[in-house]
This record gives sequence, structure tokens and C-alpha cells, in this order.
Amino acid sequence: MSRTTVGIINVTGYAGMELVRLLCQHPEVELVSVTGRSAAGKRLGQVFPHLAQLDLTIEVELGNVDLAFSAMPHGESAKEVILLLNRGVKVVDISADFRLKDSAEYPRWYEFSHPAPQLLKQAVYGLPELYRSQVASAQLVANPGCYPTGAILALAPMVKEGLIKPDIVIDSKSGVSGAGRTISLETHYSEVNEDVAAYALVGHRHLPEIIQELKLLRPEQLPLVTFVPHLIPMTRGILSTCYASIVSGKVAAGKKGEEELRQLYLDFYRDEPFVKILEFSPHTKHTLGSNLCLLYSTIDHRTGKLIVISSIDNLIKGAAGQAIQNMNLMLGIPETTGLEALAIYP
Amino acid sequence: MSRTTVGIINVTGYAGMELVRLLCQHPEVELVSVTGRSAAGKRLGQVFPHLAQLDLTIEVELGNVDLAFSAMPHGESAKEVILLLNRGVKVVDISADFRLKDSAEYPRWYEFSHPAPQLLKQAVYGLPELYRSQVASAQLVANPGCYPTGAILALAPMVKEGLIKPDIVIDSKSGVSGAGRTISLETHYSEVNEDVAAYALVGHRHLPEIIQELKLLRPEQLPLVTFVPHLIPMTRGILSTCYASIVSGKVAAGKKGEEELRQLYLDFYRDEPFVKILEFSPHTKHTLGSNLCLLYSTIDHRTGKLIVISSIDNLIKGAAGQAIQNMNLMLGIPETTGLEALAIYP
Amino acid sequence: MSRTTVGIINVTGYAGMELVRLLCQHPEVELVSVTGRSAAGKRLGQVFPHLAQLDLTIEVELGNVDLAFSAMPHGESAKEVILLLNRGVKVVDISADFRLKDSAEYPRWYEFSHPAPQLLKQAVYGLPELYRSQVASAQLVANPGCYPTGAILALAPMVKEGLIKPDIVIDSKSGVSGAGRTISLETHYSEVNEDVAAYALVGHRHLPEIIQELKLLRPEQLPLVTFVPHLIPMTRGILSTCYASIVSGKVAAGKKGEEELRQLYLDFYRDEPFVKILEFSPHTKHTLGSNLCLLYSTIDHRTGKLIVISSIDNLIKGAAGQAIQNMNLMLGIPETTGLEALAIYP
Amino acid sequence: MSRTTVGIINVTGYAGMELVRLLCQHPEVELVSVTGRSAAGKRLGQVFPHLAQLDLTIEVELGNVDLAFSAMPHGESAKEVILLLNRGVKVVDISADFRLKDSAEYPRWYEFSHPAPQLLKQAVYGLPELYRSQVASAQLVANPGCYPTGAILALAPMVKEGLIKPDIVIDSKSGVSGAGRTISLETHYSEVNEDVAAYALVGHRHLPEIIQELKLLRPEQLPLVTFVPHLIPMTRGILSTCYASIVSGKVAAGKKGEEELRQLYLDFYRDEPFVKILEFSPHTKHTLGSNLCLLYSTIDHRTGKLIVISSIDNLIKGAAGQAIQNMNLMLGIPETTGLEALAIYP
Repeated sequence: MSRTTVGIINVTGYAGMELVRLLCQHPEVELVSVTGRSAAGKRLGQVFPHLAQLDLTIEVELGNVDLAFSAMPHGESAKEVILLLNRGVKVVDISADFRLKDSAEYPRWYEFSHPAPQLLKQAVYGLPELYRSQVASAQLVANPGCYPTGAILALAPMVKEGLIKPDIVIDSKSGVSGAGRTISLETHYSEVNEDVAAYALVGHRHLPEIIQELKLLRPEQLPLVTFVPHLIPMTRGILSTCYASIVSGKVAAGKKGEEELRQLYLDFYRDEPFVKILEFSPHTKHTLGSNLCLLYSTIDHRTGKLIVISSIDNLIKGAAGQAIQNMNLMLGIPETTGLEALAIYP
Repeated sequence: MSRTTVGIINVTGYAGMELVRLLCQHPEVELVSVTGRSAAGKRLGQVFPHLAQLDLTIEVELGNVDLAFSAMPHGESAKEVILLLNRGVKVVDISADFRLKDSAEYPRWYEFSHPAPQLLKQAVYGLPELYRSQVASAQLVANPGCYPTGAILALAPMVKEGLIKPDIVIDSKSGVSGAGRTISLETHYSEVNEDVAAYALVGHRHLPEIIQELKLLRPEQLPLVTFVPHLIPMTRGILSTCYASIVSGKVAAGKKGEEELRQLYLDFYRDEPFVKILEFSPHTKHTLGSNLCLLYSTIDHRTGKLIVISSIDNLIKGAAGQAIQNMNLMLGIPETTGLEALAIYP
Repeated sequence: MSRTTVGIINVTGYAGMELVRLLCQHPEVELVSVTGRSAAGKRLGQVFPHLAQLDLTIEVELGNVDLAFSAMPHGESAKEVILLLNRGVKVVDISADFRLKDSAEYPRWYEFSHPAPQLLKQAVYGLPELYRSQVASAQLVANPGCYPTGAILALAPMVKEGLIKPDIVIDSKSGVSGAGRTISLETHYSEVNEDVAAYALVGHRHLPEIIQELKLLRPEQLPLVTFVPHLIPMTRGILSTCYASIVSGKVAAGKKGEEELRQLYLDFYRDEPFVKILEFSPHTKHTLGSNLCLLYSTIDHRTGKLIVISSIDNLIKGAAGQAIQNMNLMLGIPETTGLEALAIYP
Repeated sequence: MSRTTVGIINVTGYAGMELVRLLCQHPEVELVSVTGRSAAGKRLGQVFPHLAQLDLTIEVELGNVDLAFSAMPHGESAKEVILLLNRGVKVVDISADFRLKDSAEYPRWYEFSHPAPQLLKQAVYGLPELYRSQVASAQLVANPGCYPTGAILALAPMVKEGLIKPDIVIDSKSGVSGAGRTISLETHYSEVNEDVAAYALVGHRHLPEIIQELKLLRPEQLPLVTFVPHLIPMTRGILSTCYASIVSGKVAAGKKGEEELRQLYLDFYRDEPFVKILEFSPHTKHTLGSNLCLLYSTIDHRTGKLIVISSIDNLIKGAAGQAIQNMNLMLGIPETTGLEALAIYP
């Protein structure tokens, strides 16, 4: 019996490339077609030497597949996805085009009018830890953004249980690969090396996604999220340090309160294969190359602040790995298949 | 007429070493004596090849000087400083031993009983932007910590004017040289490279210093500071991203409010040679090698949050440069003398 | 039927740690015992958080295993290996203790007298590309050093065919993890970052190993190897740039000569699963996380010089990966088992 | 009396930018005009925030100056230089357009026909250590390339004295700023970080410059130079490791030979303010921010090979600093003026 076939639209960015790496080591699916306008006709190994042993040529149009990943840029992906859905192909969309439920958000944050607002409700937000069953039966999954993945997993237990006040600060530190493979002065080596800076202070596009999901976790409370991303001189990894005031009386004082928090996280993510609750502050390096999200929560008792920190590999749990986790669910394959790799350290 | 003579106690750490580099290019003082127990008898250039052209031998005891810098570790510096003061020598103490006004803080944060509590009131906290005239007439100046320098300069105008609520989050990102020259697994190259992590979540020693100074800026309001430092894979630089809620009604809405803030900072730091108010978010790389503190303030209007970001070179404005700025003031030398170097970029 | 059991002596260095990561994902063997004096009694995840999901406690003594890896330091490993061989356990020794055939080299290069010179002849030098069949039947395999692996694979075809003169320059660039997990000022982050330097100019310990193997490839010609390693501000990877004069008349002029060379390499490494002959200069990043050795050869026709460049991940093909490749051969398991991972890029 | 005025053509690259930083701290000249087509009309601080305190606007045409630096790209610089010379302005050309004496080399290596071959003889190759007096009286100085500066200074004493055979290998390791400020995939952060690779294996443009100067040092011997540059994940610095066989009988055996070599270098560079002969292998970090060239020579007695290593900051001694050193000589200013800064370490 033949294996399920999959394909990738726009393989030439870092997310597409990482999908190839993971898929070609996946035992249950077969990667049979990849596209990429600028590199059409080239063999994969000409564009990505580390993938040279794969026998794949980049095409203009996607061949026949059971499931496709779209790694098209925001605004262009939706059109491709619509075509695929019409062909009956299941889709995991890596772009933001189906993440937001309210079509009015697209002109505001992404500067385009959504071509298929009716599909936004049908699309499932692909964070398996929150939407596992919906993903499993979905035709179209919107793969979460890298920042939202880390931030939502960090905050979900506290928000859902109503243990924190709605005023939340998320201070994120991202490796440079999060900015993609498109060259720019901002990602020119000599400009980024030995440097840290905040960016997108007027509002990062991942903000509405974070707010939407936190709101869905506790509809009675509008979250007030201040989100500031920073660019860090490293290639991979996102560390998100989240701050919020604990609702007084909801958590015990001292060590006991910290233990309660830890237990809450352990319970919330019990049986989650890709979320680990640590007893110490996570390092991005402990996730490099793996699909894990590491979490640590503590309380600053002097100020009554929850501090919860998450660490992911932005290209894996923050993009390609999560996309495959979603694919596994959609195809009825065990969720961790092809995603068992441990982090590469040091 | 002979120039003023200066010396350094414990020259073998990064702060001591950086003092040498800056002092030997200073036109108004002469560095005549440096000490360092572990390296006594060696020429400076044997320990620090980039200082090889200096004709100085590391001694056991400090020679005769008009002013001394102590770069001894916390807890050991106080004893040396007391001896120097008794000899009539002016002192800039790089350690934390005279930064905190309340001697009870030392056992709590630094695990030692202060040997000369009476000197704590006499010592001047060496942040010239706040204490210029006191520094000028001081016998003993306590040079601020690297994190406090960036954080206090970022927050001072807002705190002093009472424009923000007392609940403040300071999320700092530091280069690894901030951890000093003492080797450890935490600063082993392969462990730190390609990694970001928070540390000191139970309370960093620089916290009481930040709280003390913010409180002095507005005694009627107890600041509630949550401070989380992070280690970044770069050598120099600290970026501090500070968050606080703006007191409602105190700042105008929209762009007008941002302009008001900017004007407040421009006014507060008018004539300050080493504080620059930017119109964009600062990079640590723009301060590397210089004594500047770069500041940028903005408002997240959705959440009513002030976001103010400061950038310094932790070894210069955060240590040796500020110490020389203090020395200049104490000796009646123009404040910027020997500190004119522009940042090295890229 | 139970799987073959394996163990690791001294798991607490980078090579030991990397062995764990690779072995626990290996489908044909079971890692049942790991030792480490300093960390005995701790669970693996306490020392290496990225290995936290493994259920292994670090022991003082190795339990019963079919095959053991020794990751003991040079000079200490031999004693452990002798005990293991006496117990009938197969051994892959990661240290240098059985790499050199001439016991007189040990006092000279490693400052100890070899405790079992008779075993040196029996031990097989574990470079499968040269000694596959001997490895397959060996009781004791001496796993090659990281520099020799890259250098020998780069030069072997030319030396064996007698196409180059014996005067060879090997200029190697290594990531810092090659210096191990033991802390030192030389590997302190702030000292190594933004820096390149040569080291071991009086003669690196890997030099006799390189000479021994090149000599064995062409006994009639004594190789004259000048080897200079450099430390590079990255964690993993070794790039070796090798230079030698081509014997005149042996290779065609111009492009044709380059093609001849390329064909020679293709033929020499035909069917080798872990050696790839490229058409462009290799990057260390293209091997990060994989067991590949990438090779590229060219000729500087103006000077008649062969330039051949090899790239490996020093902790994989240069240590743990090659050790597992050897283990596979010794146990009759397909050679690539557990080593299929593609490089992580970028 | 007014100070000498200077200007920079094409200030928007890294060399131009570094010239500004150094010139505006120079006490004897005044930077009065800078040009840059793409950024004309902008204030310098808008393009380079670290230069924000300078009151300079980027112009389309250079104003009146006594001396101009051209930082135009190769092939475009010559035209500008000709115009300046016609105006009677002294010129230091940072480009390669006047470095090669033989106009036939330009089509071959730089793909353009030289517009003023007659000027090539008149132009002085601006390596002050070799051509100090000629520079002092020159109207036009061709500032050396970054690789040639380090390589020629490393090899000059040995070549001039005829102590080495003509077959020379230069293996250079450069920081990424050497590739300039123009963005490309090759200098995209995520591609270069954690990576080392050789490049320009078919022949780097700096090669004819190295050969020309080595030949001039010893006209009776044609040097056979194999030069391979490598890109290193750091911003600044070039380390060049040079290899050549010592002519037998010319240097003593053992330690005595090494001492003879060291003495040769000490004598050759006696009184040179910017060349230091070390007793250990140099680090690029020991030159960061300074105009120094550090040299170390040794002998591999087993192979009879000279190994000499040089370290420079590619943007200072390798570009802008050397240009100012040349300017000082041309204007009769003490050679080290404005170039006294020590390296920034760590």
C-alpha cells in the first residue's frame, strides 16, 4: 500500500526548507512535490546543500498530493489554499492567512482584504495543545505564528483559570531566522551580530493572534497584551518572558504558591508530548532542533507578579514541526511521528 | 606641574581592565599604580595583550595616588576603601559595597555585614545625571551597577514626574561580559552561544539598588519593581525594556502623548553629555565602546503602557566609563574628558 | 529477543552527552548504563536538560553491557578499556589511548607511558572509510580524533594515489565545542566571541595520528605535515583546508585536471554513505547535526597546488557519530542505522 | 588658522562610515563634506545612528577640501579620483583602482579597462611600513586591500631577506564586515552564523596585489602565492596564517632559529608604530578597534616550514585607519595622530 503523499508550496524559505528536512525523515508520509517560483527547475540540493541527498526537483505547480503545506507569504497564501481545498486536498497553512477569525483584522494588521472570509471560521487554529480534536477532523489548519505558539502555551493555564489580571506583558527574544530567508539590512550579519534591539513597537502582526487565543480561553475577560519582540544574535529559538499580576487570593503565598502554579501547569499539559514543565528557567538551546516547548513559572512575591517563560525552536515548534504535528493529527498518524528528535546540544 | 595620579585596585577583571584602557588615553590624569593579587609581579601586557604598550607592572599594594578605583569583589571592596579613605585618597568604588544606603540590605542581598555602615550615608551614588553636584564634592563615590544604570536612567523622568503607576517591569538583556572574567560553566562559550535564558529569578542583587533610587526620585510612592535579567550571546551591551502603566489623564492620547513623553525626556536630560533621546528603538551595538546611554520611550495606546528602552555598553557607562565620569567630576575636570570615543560600529 | 545493550563511561563531557543523544534514538541498541564520577547519582536530565526525557541515572560503575564507549580523558581511558576487554565487552574508545600504533608516541605527545602497548596493534583505527572490514571484526576500536577525521578523509585519495608531494599544509578551523566541556579562560565566552586565533603551534596532539594514517596509505613516502588548528567563534564544526603540490605530470592541466581530481574522489568514496563529494566549497553549517563529511577538491593552476577542503560536525563524524558508525559495524547492524539525521540548517 | 579640510566620497559603506568615526575624533583635520548618492540629503545620523552627534549632511557632490578619501566601489572610483586630482585635491583611494601597477591586471581581475593607466605609476601603494617616504610626497595614494595589508606585513621580512622559498600559502580568516554593507544571502545572518567556509577559490581579487608587492620586495624571485580566504562568524578582524618553506641553511635549527626570526621581524619593524611583534600567536580580538597589525612567527622544525600569523582589524589597519595613517603622512601630521585608540577588549 502506498504511503500518504504530501507537498510543499513555496519551499524556498526557512519554513519550507525545514518542512522538507523533517518530512523526508518521516516514516509515514512521502514528500512527492515541492514548488517555488524563483527556483523552479532546480534540484533541491542546489538551493539547500544540506538537502542534497533528496531526489526532488522544485516545480512551478504542485503535483497530486493528499495533503499540502503552504509556506507562501502572508496575503498570497490564501489564494493557493483556496485552490487546494477545491481540489479536495487537506492543507496546513504556515502563513497567517487563516489564523485570525475576524476578517476585519486582515486589512488592519496585514494590509489586505481577505479573499475568503467564510473560510476563517472553518479553519482550525493549529495549536494541538488547545485544539487537538478540531485539528484531527479539519480540512484546513492555520499553523500558529512562532511568537504566539510560545506566548499562548506559556499563558494559557493562568488565563483559563482566571488566576491573573488581564494586563499582560510579553517580552520575547527571537533568533534571526524568525525574520526569514529574505535578505535585508536588518538581518545583515555585521548589523545583527553583537547586538540586541526591540522592534515592531507600534504593534507586531502576531499580537492579534495572541489576543484572539487568550480571549477564547476566557471569554469573560478581555486581555490587555503589551507585546515587544527583540532580535537576538543567534539563529534559532524564541524565549518569551511573560509578566502578569496574580489575582489576589487566588494563589497561596510563598513557596506553596509556586508549587500550586507548577501543579497547575503539570495538570494542564499532562500527556502533552511536546510541552515540558521545568523546575528551572529554560534555555532556547535546550530546544534547538526539537519540537518541544519548555515552560517555567514562578512568582515574584514582592510584587505579586507571575513570571512565566517559554522556550521553543522558532522553526520547529514555531513553524515546521508544529505543522507536521498538525499533519499527523489530520492524517490519523500518531502525533509524535517524525518529531522525536532530541535537541542538539551544545 | 604634575598631573593628578590615579590607581586601580584589582585590575584583573573586566572592569579593571577597561579602566586601564580608558585611563591611559585620558589627558588629565596619570595611571601610576595597579594591583591584583593573582597576577602581582606580571606586566599588564602579559595578562591583557591589548594593553601591552603600557609600561605598568601589577603590584600587591597600591602606590601613592590622588584617587583610586576599587574593582574588588563585593564584600571585599569595603575594607580596601576604608583604608584608602583613611589615607586621604578619593575613591570610586566599582563594587556594590557603598551603593545601598540601608546597611540591612547587605546581609540580605550580598550575604555580609557591612563593616562601615556610617560611611553609607556619606558615600554618593555615582549616577552623575542624578547626583552631579554631590559627586563633585564627594570623597567616596559608589559607582552604580550596570543594570541599575540603564534602568534608572530609563525610568527616572517618568517616576519623578509621577506619570506611571508604581508597578514596573524591567526586562533586561545583557552581554556575557557582565558576568565578569571568572570562568564558569554558565559562561563557557559552547553553553552560551546560540542561547538565551533568564536568570536570577529569585531576585538579582541589582534590584535593591534600582528600588532605592526610584524611591528617592519620588519618596511618596513605593515602586514595585519586577526585574528579570537575561543572558544574551554577545560580549557587551545591556538593553533594558521597561514597562509601566501610565497614570490615566496624565499623558495625552495618541501621537500627542508620545510627543509629550519625548519632550519630557529631552527636558530631563537636557545638557546631559552622555544621554541621548532617540526617535527610534536603540541597539546595544550603537553604544559599544562609548559612554552613551541611549533612550527611547513610547506608549502602547491599546494597553496604556509606557515602554521605555535603554541601551548602554555594560563595561563603559555600566562600569568603567561611568567611574571615570565620576572621577572627572570629583577632580574638577570637564566631565566628558577621556570619554569622547564614539561607538565602534558595526 | 532483547536488543543489544550498550553503555558509556564518563558521560559528562560533550562526546559522552552526544553519544547519549544519538544512542537513545538508535533503533537497534539499548543504552542501559552510563557512568560519570563527578555526577554519579544524578539523573541524566539534571546534568543535561535536553536529555531529560531519558530514564537514566549516572552510575559509578558501568553495568552489564555488550558494548561500551569510553569517553574518559586521554591517559585514563586505557585502564578502563583493559578492564572492559577482560570482561569480554566490545569497546569503542573515544580517547586517543589506542589510536597510535607506536607506543613511543604516547610519552612524547600525551605525556604518559602506555599501560598496554601490546593492545595497540590489536586495536583498529576506527575510520570506517579506510578500515571497514577490520572494524567489523574488532574487539577494540580506537575512534579517530576530530581533526584527523576531516584531514585524513580529505587527503587519503591523493596520498594513496601518489598524486601529491609529501609536503602538506593542513589549516583547520574548529568550533569551540572541540575544546570540550571543561571550563577555561580560553573557552570563556567573552574571550572567544568575535575572535579567531591559531593555537598549539608547537604541535597539536592530533598530528601524529594524521601522519600515521597518511603514511599507512602510502608507506613509500614519508608525509611532511604542517598542521595548524584555529579556534573559531562557533560551537560545532571543523573545516580543514589542505594544501599540497601536485606531482607534475600526474594531473591534467586546467579544467580537465579538476575533473580528474573530482572523479578520483568520487571513485575513492563511491558507496560511502557518509562522505559526499561537492562541486563547491563546503560549509560547516551543512554538516551541523549530521554524520557527513563533505569534501571539495580543486587546483590552483598558477601554483600547481591541490586545495582540498573537508567539513564535519566535530561532535558527530568527529566523535560520537563515528563511534556509533563503528559500533554498527562491530555489531553487524547496517552502518547508517541511527545516523540518518540530515544537517540542521540554518 | 584653519585646520586642513577633508572629505569622503561615498560615505555609506563600512569603510566610509569608519573613516567618519576616526576623522571626527582627529585633532588636526576637519571633516567638512561627505557624499553618498543613495543617501544624499540625509543627515549622517539617520544612516548611522552611532554618528548622530556629528553635524554633517550627506551631499551629492563633494565640497571644497584639501584632501579627499574615495570609498567608491572598484571601477567607479578611478573616475572620481581623476576629477579630484584635476582640482588639485590630494586623494587617498580606498578602492583597488590604483593599487595595481600593471593596467592589464584590471580587465583580468576587476573586469574593467583602466581609464587612466598613466596614473598607475604615479600612485603610491599606501602601505606606510614599505613606502613611507613616497606616501609623504604623494598626490594620490592607493590604500591597500584588507587581506594584502595583513599578508604583506606578515611576509615582507622573510621575502625581502630571501629566507623562504617562493611557494607560499596564505590561509586567511576574515570577519563578515569585510564583505561590506551591501546585503546578500552570503552575508545574511542566519547563513553565516555558526558557519565557516572558504570562498573565492578560483582566485580572489586581492591576490594580484599581494603578488605585486612580494615581487617588488625581491624582484629576483617570482612568488608563487596560493591564497584562500575564509568567512568567519564575527564582524571584524582578519587573521592570516602564512606558510612557506625556509631556504635550507639560512636559519638556525631549533629555538635559535625561532629567535633569529623574531629578531628579524623586530629589526624590520623597528620604530613602526602600528606593527607589534608578539611572543605568542595573535588574536583578532586584540586588534578590534585599533590600527595595529600584530605579528608572530615560528618554525615547524619537523617540516622546515615558516609559519607567520598576522592579525588586523579589517576596517581599521585594513581600510579606514590605514587611510588616515596615509593622510597623516601626506599632510605632514605625526603618523599616529587620531589613531592612538587601544583595542576594545573583550
